[in-house]
This record gives sequence, C-alpha cells and structure tokens, in this order.
Amino acid sequence: MALIGVLIDEMFEDIEYTEPAKAFKEAGHYITHIGLRKGQLVKGKRKRTLVKIDQSISEAKPESLDAILIPGGCSPDHLRGEKKSIKFIKDYFETGKPVFAICHAPQILITAQLLEGRRVTGWKSIVQDIKNAGAIYVDQEVVEDGNLISSRGPRDIPAFTKASLNKLETI
Amino acid sequence: MALIGVLIDEMFEDIEYTEPAKAFKEAGHYITHIGLRKGQLVKGKRKRTLVKIDQSISEAKPESLDAILIPGGCSPDHLRGEKKSIKFIKDYFETGKPVFAICHAPQILITAQLLEGRRVTGWKSIVQDIKNAGAIYVDQEVVEDGNLISSRGPRDIPAFTKASLNKLETI
Repeated sequence: MALIGVLIDEMFEDIEYTEPAKAFKEAGHYITHIGLRKGQLVKGKRKRTLVKIDQSISEAKPESLDAILIPGGCSPDHLRGEKKSIKFIKDYFETGKPVFAICHAPQILITAQLLEGRRVTGWKSIVQDIKNAGAIYVDQEVVEDGNLISSRGPRDIPAFTKASLNKLETI
Repeated sequence: MALIGVLIDEMFEDIEYTEPAKAFKEAGHYITHIGLRKGQLVKGKRKRTLVKIDQSISEAKPESLDAILIPGGCSPDHLRGEKKSIKFIKDYFETGKPVFAICHAPQILITAQLLEGRRVTGWKSIVQDIKNAGAIYVDQEVVEDGNLISSRGPRDIPAFTKASLNKLETI
C-alpha cells in the first residue's frame, strides 16, 4: 500500500481533493497532508471542506512518499508563491515517483520549471502558461507521461482517479 | 476626464480595485465595470466588496474607453478562461491606450500573448509565467513600459495609483 502526500493550501477545489482521496483510501492507501504550516486548517473554496496539515512542506521528506496528489483551485497558486514549495517539488520530482496533478496543479510544476518537453493537461485558464513552459498541452481528460498524470478539472475526476489508482498498482 | 474600464470578476483582490478606483474618481475620472455578464454582482475575495457589472466584455467597445484597470486576486484567472475576454483585451491593446495591471492581472495579458518583449511586474506566484511569456520581469513597485503600467500587489497600490493618475494626465 502506498503513502500519498497531498500538497494543499487554502481554497483548494474541494472535490479534486475529496474524491481522489476517498478512492485512494478505499483502495487501502494512506494519505498525509502537506502544506505551508503543520497543524494549520485549510479550507476548500466551494464546500469549505476542512483539511488539517500533517506535515509542513519544509520538513516533508520526498523519499518517504510513494506518490503526490496536487488538487486545483487557488491552492497551487498560493503554494507556488513560497520557495520552500518549489524546493520540495523539485526534490520530489528527482525521485521519479508519481505526481497526480489536476486543474491548476501544473502551476506549481511551471514555477519549478519541471514541464519542459512533458505532455500535460490542465485547467483552460492555464493552457498558455503550460505551452509557454515548454510543455506539450494535450486537451483530454487524462494525460499520462511517465511519472506525471494530469487532468483538466472537476469533470475529469473519474478518469483521473482511475489512472492514478492504476499507477499506484505498478509501484 | 477619462473613462476607465475595470476588467473584473468574482474574487478580485478588494483593495486593488477600491483604492485605485477611489483615487480615479476623486481626480474626476469615470469608471465602468466590465465583466462576463452585464448586471452580475461580483464579490471581492477578502472584504466581500460588491461590484455590479455595467457592460459585458463581449459588448464592451475598446474605442469607447480611455484606459483599463485590471485588479488582481482570482478575477484575472476567471476572466482569461473565457475567449471573449482574450478577444477584448487583444482589441483594446491594439488601440495603444493605457493598461493598469496589478498583482495577478498579467495573467490575462499572458493568455492574450501580449507580453513578448515587454517590461512588466506582477505577483510573486506568476513571475515564472511572466518570464515564460517572453516578458522582462522587473521586481519593483511600479513598472512603466509604454501603455502598460504594472505593480506587484497590495503594498504597491500607492505607487501604482500615482503612476496611473500621471498616465491619465497625458492622454
């Protein structure tokens, strides 16, 4: 069973966290919430889902995780404004372990300059940012490129969750 | 006296709208609120400031405006997800008239591919997006490049407003 780190901050898109997390837990996997401050409660933007941060991003160990889930909403924009988030995601990417990124999640990967030459999708408002980052934008419900699985937004959650679960079975 | 179009949608950064708008009105200028739907009430993300949309972005006439103000927050991300906003800002830019862009506002200009070679600043989270768009990112409170005046965020509002008012005096 895998330990999945959820990178999350205020105003995440609720169902992009709750639905994949529920499916991961039902499949027997474990979740740890990684954010800016340990013990902080962060809230979803629509349904006000509350999430307690288990580990601060400056203390989290990439090698202790088996995969990462990045929900969308305004959360990725908040996280990528902090250098410690960028350091963490760069270190994590070096391990080659899976990243499940949905909606606005690629924003963090753009700031960390990790998308050059990668096939990726994301929310419609960030398409030009994805292209400008040197990535190949693909307009489909789920895009898999090596360790990176991405989806466009809430409507793609079933396909995103399925592809993520399949990936977890291979590790 | 100038007519200033404010491009605005849900969850704008309140004071990036209220403070410049107040200063513009005190100087005798006029404000018209341009958004996705005429008559819609949009709300600020912190203080819940309410703004009524006077003109829909698909009907607004770039040639009828003397300047544009784009407040930050989540509003620019919402606007740039709609093709009609991108068409409007492209048409407006062709007039060469002033654009006052603060915080996340450059996101709209990135999607409209208007920043290549321009000197611009913006909120810390979008710095890499600005650079990837081919712009020259400048880390200062206000950056003026031809018709484009930009600032980083709330702390820069006094300098941003002053530079914008000075620009309005030249037209």
